[in-house]
Amino acid sequence: MKVVFLGTGAGLPSKERNVTSIILDLLQENQEMWMFDCGEATQHQILNTNIKPRKVTKIFITHLHGDHIYGLPGFLSSRSFQGGTDPVTICGPPGIEQFVRTSLQISQTRLTYPLEFIETRDGLIYEDSRFKVTAQALDHGILSYGYRIMEKDLPGALLVDKLKEHNIQPGPIYQQIKAQPAVTLPNGEVLETAPFIGEPKRGKIVAIFGDTRYKKDHFFLAENADVLVHEATFSANQSGLAKDYYHSTTAQAASLAKKAKVKKLILTHISARFQEDEIESLLGEATLIFPNSVIAKDYTWFDV
Amino acid sequence: MKVVFLGTGAGLPSKERNVTSIILDLLQENQEMWMFDCGEATQHQILNTNIKPRKVTKIFITHLHGDHIYGLPGFLSSRSFQGGTDPVTICGPPGIEQFVRTSLQISQTRLTYPLEFIETRDGLIYEDSRFKVTAQALDHGILSYGYRIMEKDLPGALLVDKLKEHNIQPGPIYQQIKAQPAVTLPNGEVLETAPFIGEPKRGKIVAIFGDTRYKKDHFFLAENADVLVHEATFSANQSGLAKDYYHSTTAQAASLAKKAKVKKLILTHISARFQEDEIESLLGEATLIFPNSVIAKDYTWFDV
Ligand SMILES: [Zn+2]
Ligand SMILES: [Zn+2]
Repeated sequence: MKVVFLGTGAGLPSKERNVTSIILDLLQENQEMWMFDCGEATQHQILNTNIKPRKVTKIFITHLHGDHIYGLPGFLSSRSFQGGTDPVTICGPPGIEQFVRTSLQISQTRLTYPLEFIETRDGLIYEDSRFKVTAQALDHGILSYGYRIMEKDLPGALLVDKLKEHNIQPGPIYQQIKAQPAVTLPNGEVLETAPFIGEPKRGKIVAIFGDTRYKKDHFFLAENADVLVHEATFSANQSGLAKDYYHSTTAQAASLAKKAKVKKLILTHISARFQEDEIESLLGEATLIFPNSVIAKDYTWFDV
Repeated sequence: MKVVFLGTGAGLPSKERNVTSIILDLLQENQEMWMFDCGEATQHQILNTNIKPRKVTKIFITHLHGDHIYGLPGFLSSRSFQGGTDPVTICGPPGIEQFVRTSLQISQTRLTYPLEFIETRDGLIYEDSRFKVTAQALDHGILSYGYRIMEKDLPGALLVDKLKEHNIQPGPIYQQIKAQPAVTLPNGEVLETAPFIGEPKRGKIVAIFGDTRYKKDHFFLAENADVLVHEATFSANQSGLAKDYYHSTTAQAASLAKKAKVKKLILTHISARFQEDEIESLLGEATLIFPNSVIAKDYTWFDV
């Protein structure tokens, strides 16, 4: 699992940072990529990566501000033009479907694949055999969500050495041992399987927040996450501005990461007001509170 | 007057060519810039120029395909964010207003300036003291227009030497001579002014075509233009494809330029199927028919 940043700027594109889009690369897990927000020129950013639009099958929109959605009609059209046929599911606040359908209809764009919409609300919004996604409303004036992506725990590996010690040799019986709480061996013995299976592998957790003011209740959504992606539109000494404009400071994002006991904090949505040489000091404000913090740049990616 | 190309590609953005947008720079004439089409990431392209979004006061849309309009909501929002206050007029086929208003409304974008819409149809669509713009429907499946921008002829200069020969010395009388067919001089003499005024300066004419199939009637819109901007999505030997997809070939655009007796032909809307080293041969196909042809690249500009 990887998190890839396609756009890490706030509000307006700049030469250094495009507006928001993030890819959660699940190619290893389920051969899909999931997109979080799709600001204008996200498809242009993708041209500089090896991401294939047809691999993107789910798009989660945090909120409807233009810098998070204006790239969606173009991305969807180009995905079609490039021959994508797998369906796409778009999860987002009410209004996203009208925006997308109006844009496609007025431009007479007929997609080569089906499009499905799910209206985001608090709680479970998606689940399959491998993943679960929940959402929680944040505090951004406009309805804005954070998403918590949870990989389900993977069953532990068979303890082959231990099975051999018990004279249980490899064969179809191994599959049964893995799948069932007890099995009957060829010699008639009933074997409880639990002692022969290793610890389950804890699934990864990634929390990706939309734009928001700091509010301590938000820590639920990020609790124990391997990675928390959080906005940091303002510096630590601008908490007044952050409140007025419904955004967060570096220090507030770091406090939340600490409270939620996440493993790593990735800051994004960096304002163009900050010159590149001020980024170090923004980062310092975060690491003071939560040491394992980083600030994303366009095209940086992180293993989870 | 200058024509600046912000995007010269067809359909999809590529690393070399963005989707369509053209600026007609009228800063010298009336301190405005007019935009023709606004594909996705036009505002990003502008970041690499010295064009100021607040100077763009009119936007003409040729047709509603996504590669010609998806940059509009972002451009308008950023123009607002950067403090533009002058009104913007958008001229385009029916549907453009719904697209723009839906996008702005769903993203809760409140512009700092008024927005006005004019529905493009055949004939005169705009006139002020300095310019006249007419439109003509082309042949692109979807309703697609070409625009003809005509600068009005400028009155000739006063022939000062000739006035002095007649003992008419500089003073307020010169303004009257310029403005009136006849004036009464201080000595009572009535002077016909025409012989003292030079030839009127012919206004410039620029024709900017939307995507279209070749049709010889289109030459009316380009007749005697100083510059014709025309698409060339296909090469000379692909006229079958051009017809099927409602586009033109290099040779067709050149034929139109010849028939319309324009001074210069600028080809754009170049497909990413062509490598950069094939561009020379595309150009050769055009110059064979109409010698004063060029192929635009992103960021190239031309004096008119
Ligand atoms: Zn926002
Ligand atoms: Zn078109």
